[in-house]
Amino acid sequence: MVENEKAFLNTQSELSMKGAGYYSKKTIGAKIAIDSLQHLIIDALNNISKSKNLRFADFGSADGGTSQELWYNVISVMRERGDHRPIEIIYTDLASNDFSTLFKTMQGMGENVDLAYQKEFENVFVHGCGTGFHDQLVTSGTLSLGFSATAMHYVSEKPCQILNHVHMVGASNIERNKFKKQALVDWEAILSARAKELEPGGRFICINFGIDENGRYLGNTGDKSMFESFNRHWKGHLDSGIITEEEFISATFPQHYRTVEEFSQPFVGNDCLSNKIGLKLNRIFTKLTKCPYRQEYENNKATITPEEFAKEFIPTTRSWSETVFRSALKNRTYEETNQIVESFYKNYENEVANSPSEHSMDYVHIVMEIERI
Amino acid sequence: MVENEKAFLNTQSELSMKGAGYYSKKTIGAKIAIDSLQHLIIDALNNISKSKNLRFADFGSADGGTSQELWYNVISVMRERGDHRPIEIIYTDLASNDFSTLFKTMQGMGENVDLAYQKEFENVFVHGCGTGFHDQLVTSGTLSLGFSATAMHYVSEKPCQILNHVHMVGASNIERNKFKKQALVDWEAILSARAKELEPGGRFICINFGIDENGRYLGNTGDKSMFESFNRHWKGHLDSGIITEEEFISATFPQHYRTVEEFSQPFVGNDCLSNKIGLKLNRIFTKLTKCPYRQEYENNKATITPEEFAKEFIPTTRSWSETVFRSALKNRTYEETNQIVESFYKNYENEVANSPSEHSMDYVHIVMEIERI
Repeated sequence: MVENEKAFLNTQSELSMKGAGYYSKKTIGAKIAIDSLQHLIIDALNNISKSKNLRFADFGSADGGTSQELWYNVISVMRERGDHRPIEIIYTDLASNDFSTLFKTMQGMGENVDLAYQKEFENVFVHGCGTGFHDQLVTSGTLSLGFSATAMHYVSEKPCQILNHVHMVGASNIERNKFKKQALVDWEAILSARAKELEPGGRFICINFGIDENGRYLGNTGDKSMFESFNRHWKGHLDSGIITEEEFISATFPQHYRTVEEFSQPFVGNDCLSNKIGLKLNRIFTKLTKCPYRQEYENNKATITPEEFAKEFIPTTRSWSETVFRSALKNRTYEETNQIVESFYKNYENEVANSPSEHSMDYVHIVMEIERI
Repeated sequence: MVENEKAFLNTQSELSMKGAGYYSKKTIGAKIAIDSLQHLIIDALNNISKSKNLRFADFGSADGGTSQELWYNVISVMRERGDHRPIEIIYTDLASNDFSTLFKTMQGMGENVDLAYQKEFENVFVHGCGTGFHDQLVTSGTLSLGFSATAMHYVSEKPCQILNHVHMVGASNIERNKFKKQALVDWEAILSARAKELEPGGRFICINFGIDENGRYLGNTGDKSMFESFNRHWKGHLDSGIITEEEFISATFPQHYRTVEEFSQPFVGNDCLSNKIGLKLNRIFTKLTKCPYRQEYENNKATITPEEFAKEFIPTTRSWSETVFRSALKNRTYEETNQIVESFYKNYENEVANSPSEHSMDYVHIVMEIERI
């Protein structure tokens, strides 16, 4: 496994250009976590849907790259077992998502041509939906299997700005409770929508960022906490007069990391939401995935310098966080904005280069298998 | 009707910026033709599908703008009649299509907010598909109604370059026959794919560019022929040494305008394709839609100068043709390419300004209603 990961990492390192597929390339850790769920999907397939047509959904899929191998493998297993039923797979994300890259990838007109399952297998149809997953997205009772990976920590709206930090993990109690409340409202909307979409016996399997039983979360598993680093360098820019107080505050991630308890809440008690909408929680567990960049560095200290590690590491934190800092900068020219964002990540990079063994972005996920009854 | 068209035209004229929705804005004539088919769709709805869920498809939809009002009206009529069945509508086009604009538009996050039917009506789900319509795009037997407007004149591949002209309407007999043959192969693939997708009783209604019983086609209805003008000005650039012989030849539209006979061929005779795949042709007719820009000019000569007319007219020919001339220019810098394309359309514009009453882009369509038996 480590060998494969490294081979994959080498390929990824060569592809340093931003643009089509950039998100997927810099999220290899997410891919490793997603791939590990294959047995859950296969297990679900053994139980779901005796109906003649199958429909899968990948909610919050971005460009579809991180889950591509999973879907390839799942369809491959089905066909090998002699299950030749037609499969429609619908990828959903916000309307602004890059659906063109996604559609090209699945047809073998992009990267990872070997995983272009639409081309490889008969009777597989790839669709997209540009509506947020808090709404119902397909006709009631037509979904055999729903899947979502590292997408549902985004709240549908920011309940407030966080004054002294960039993320809810460092917010005041009052702020944090507002995020928690919004996240519950969103989670209930997500579950209600999936309950409508799923056919009886259909499963919704999701893997989301969250806080585990040891208080660990993304980039906060014993080393220097990533969100503390973000906050420290952003505050550094405030202290140096590079950004304004308003800009500091505006950089608030529209995210909430739920605990197992928070994810479970709609399923607990006789009067709970899940009983009303017809869902049950088959399993929930937490999952730690070690930072592949840090692992690569630890295993190759003889050949990788701290500076090289830092250069590889920062983009994996940047691919999904940059938009928050960038859009916090108001009334700036494009050049100014670029300069500030570059120096912010450069400061973080320098810190990592100075103490490489104190930095990692381990993934902490909460995995759930939910069934439509 | 003319009043409405003019009101619409005025709105369109104000929106001269390229970018999101540009294609739809410059194709108002296509929109007028499409809207006129509403009765065909409504009529089809009276006959199709007693099943509990409905699925519509819009094949080759581009950004969805030109058919948006049609779909709004169709869904509106259904709901008014008390038909509240869930509707999935899937928009298909090439993977490179701007699906983001499409998804935003239908949710009311773009222009024409009043026509955002996904937001307006309950139980309507908008999906996309980035695979070409020569393939089957949804699971067999799940489509209630297929629709396509002005999309299927594109051939899946150019059978040859046209040496002395830019379009098959001016090609040699040998070249023209190659296009005709490719267009038949494509049309049979299109019909075979739709036959698989449609449920019994389902209809496929399409309106395509073609050549009518009087030999008329797009921009060639009695005035100076648009494609002859394209060819003349492109040849002018060759004669002036601005473009090379190879560049002249490369500008070959990947299009074939079929006649009624060509469209009908798969439906004729006992041994015909349609009998094998289970389709029948309920009706086929040609339709002329007058150029709205020219009409506007003719009705307002007192206030619109020939130069103003020319400035409005050229973009309606340019929105879909520019890519052909642009991509014919090889090994040119971006600036050179721009310069050549600008001067090409400028020459056409000057010609129109000099003889405004000799130029128009009337639409000639072949309309078909095909039923799955």
